[in-house]
Amino acid sequence: MRCTVVGGGAWGTAIADRLARNGLATILWARETDVVDAVNSRHENPRFLPTIALAPNLVASGDMAAALHGAQLVVYAAPSHVLRTVVASCAQHIAPGAVLSVATKGIERETLALMTDVVGEAAPGHAVVAVSGPSFAAEVAQGQPTAVVAACAHHEAAKLVQSAMSAAAFRVYTSDDVVGVELGGALKNVMAVATGILDGLGLGFNPRAALMTRGLAEMTRLGVALGAKSDTFAGLAGLGDLVLTCTGALSRNRAVGVAIGQGQSLEEALAGKDSVAEGVLNTQSAKALADKVGVEMPIVDATHRILFDGWSPRDAVAELMARELRPERD
Amino acid sequence: MRCTVVGGGAWGTAIADRLARNGLATILWARETDVVDAVNSRHENPRFLPTIALAPNLVASGDMAAALHGAQLVVYAAPSHVLRTVVASCAQHIAPGAVLSVATKGIERETLALMTDVVGEAAPGHAVVAVSGPSFAAEVAQGQPTAVVAACAHHEAAKLVQSAMSAAAFRVYTSDDVVGVELGGALKNVMAVATGILDGLGLGFNPRAALMTRGLAEMTRLGVALGAKSDTFAGLAGLGDLVLTCTGALSRNRAVGVAIGQGQSLEEALAGKDSVAEGVLNTQSAKALADKVGVEMPIVDATHRILFDGWSPRDAVAELMARELRPERD
Repeated sequence: MRCTVVGGGAWGTAIADRLARNGLATILWARETDVVDAVNSRHENPRFLPTIALAPNLVASGDMAAALHGAQLVVYAAPSHVLRTVVASCAQHIAPGAVLSVATKGIERETLALMTDVVGEAAPGHAVVAVSGPSFAAEVAQGQPTAVVAACAHHEAAKLVQSAMSAAAFRVYTSDDVVGVELGGALKNVMAVATGILDGLGLGFNPRAALMTRGLAEMTRLGVALGAKSDTFAGLAGLGDLVLTCTGALSRNRAVGVAIGQGQSLEEALAGKDSVAEGVLNTQSAKALADKVGVEMPIVDATHRILFDGWSPRDAVAELMARELRPERD
Repeated sequence: MRCTVVGGGAWGTAIADRLARNGLATILWARETDVVDAVNSRHENPRFLPTIALAPNLVASGDMAAALHGAQLVVYAAPSHVLRTVVASCAQHIAPGAVLSVATKGIERETLALMTDVVGEAAPGHAVVAVSGPSFAAEVAQGQPTAVVAACAHHEAAKLVQSAMSAAAFRVYTSDDVVGVELGGALKNVMAVATGILDGLGLGFNPRAALMTRGLAEMTRLGVALGAKSDTFAGLAGLGDLVLTCTGALSRNRAVGVAIGQGQSLEEALAGKDSVAEGVLNTQSAKALADKVGVEMPIVDATHRILFDGWSPRDAVAELMARELRPERD
């Protein structure tokens, strides 16, 4: 089977490497010519995945039509805010019957669409499989044991992705709950910002554990209101990715939170950065979705008020702790 | 309302301090005379909760009959392996109608009984409320925001504990799922040992997140088979405590796991320690419970084989990753 990965960032490169190591003829399409050259000549991507030796049989290309030619599996790993444009620009080159997959996490800000919907609208007529879960790209490329979920309403398409990507150290579970899997990956970024805020306030492990637990509960409430299964949020794309992002290596999202917890404004926290942290955008999308379907999300609300209305993080913590006493589940 | 806390360790002391700070007349019973003296004379417990200033109105006593006299709420925080003896020895002094609560986490090894059952059998005729959740004692005593669950089949008893303990920085949710709340607190120790083993092997964040997620899934399976609600495991006493124990400050349980992951035998890892780590005992209890009700718990099994049958941790990780590919939930 021929495979193409669209997007030469850390995650796209790690997935392409994974497919190539499984013996699949794989092309990595990258926008950056230095990435294409480095992959083809030295089997590395020093810009986005430094110090990792990539599979020698992985080929990179900057020519989308050539890259997609005859591919039966196309994996998109472009940033969420450009995904629609990228997919639309190459839709005509996708082979008939090809399975599409999307490894990008996020919610389209203008439309509140999930990434599988964005791909499905930009390139209609194909099954689209969401891949998500706790997976730092560098650890996947190093062969650290990793488990993710491949979700699609068409079970055969999810199984195709499962069998293409799986390896001794990379375990892929299938799921039919695309909405749950996608929301987990996007909403966890809001909780990462919130966790960073607690860190910036100098708080300890008890508050962080409580935030993550109550955070997952409100993520689940929103998901269920949007048609997802609650079990999915207790799984790899929910809890697993939440744990990774809130307690693993310091991410961009958590770093923004830390700066804000230490007293900076959002503007100050983002100053000098190329792009807005995904979690900041996801906070807006999450609040818009929650308002739309009428679901109570106190942590998302508080994070939104802190980021955009200048609410004091310390007052936010006090107010969250002071909510009416009640049963854990009602 | 008069309250008595039985057990002057870190957690018992922190709970007694919490009750006293709410203005409740509270006596802390402790076995150690130095603890009793230090609490009464200097308002501190340097042996088990160093550097913390306790509430000036908290009184300690080594006389169980006097300590229990007229108490309407009795909270047990003795170690799990002595709990039955401690409760039985003082049952005659408990006031009629008193609500009992247990903050000890564990499963009695010989009987596989939960702590509320142990208390209920040793002092029959009272409602027994389990208190559990992500709560390092020192952080509670420092006033760090903390959230826990008080679980009892009698809602009024759970509400009494909720209202006695709650404060601006200590949020208590009620639950009627005693089995789920108690199992969460006990089984998370097995996952802490397993997480330590991954750390000892030098593995990264992806494997840790996958272990915690799949670990919670098998904890939930066992709980549901024993009559618990699956939602409870996604809550503070399940996920919350799991996150705290597996990613917070290094616990005794994780330290034993680290030593074993680095190649020591269980005997070597425990050498020179006063007592066996709770997670080691819990691994035996968890496996016995799983075998009894016929629930598959691959991580508990692997941890058990590593601890007691000398299985190589690296082979265990490889075998867990090599299980048949399948849906995440089936």
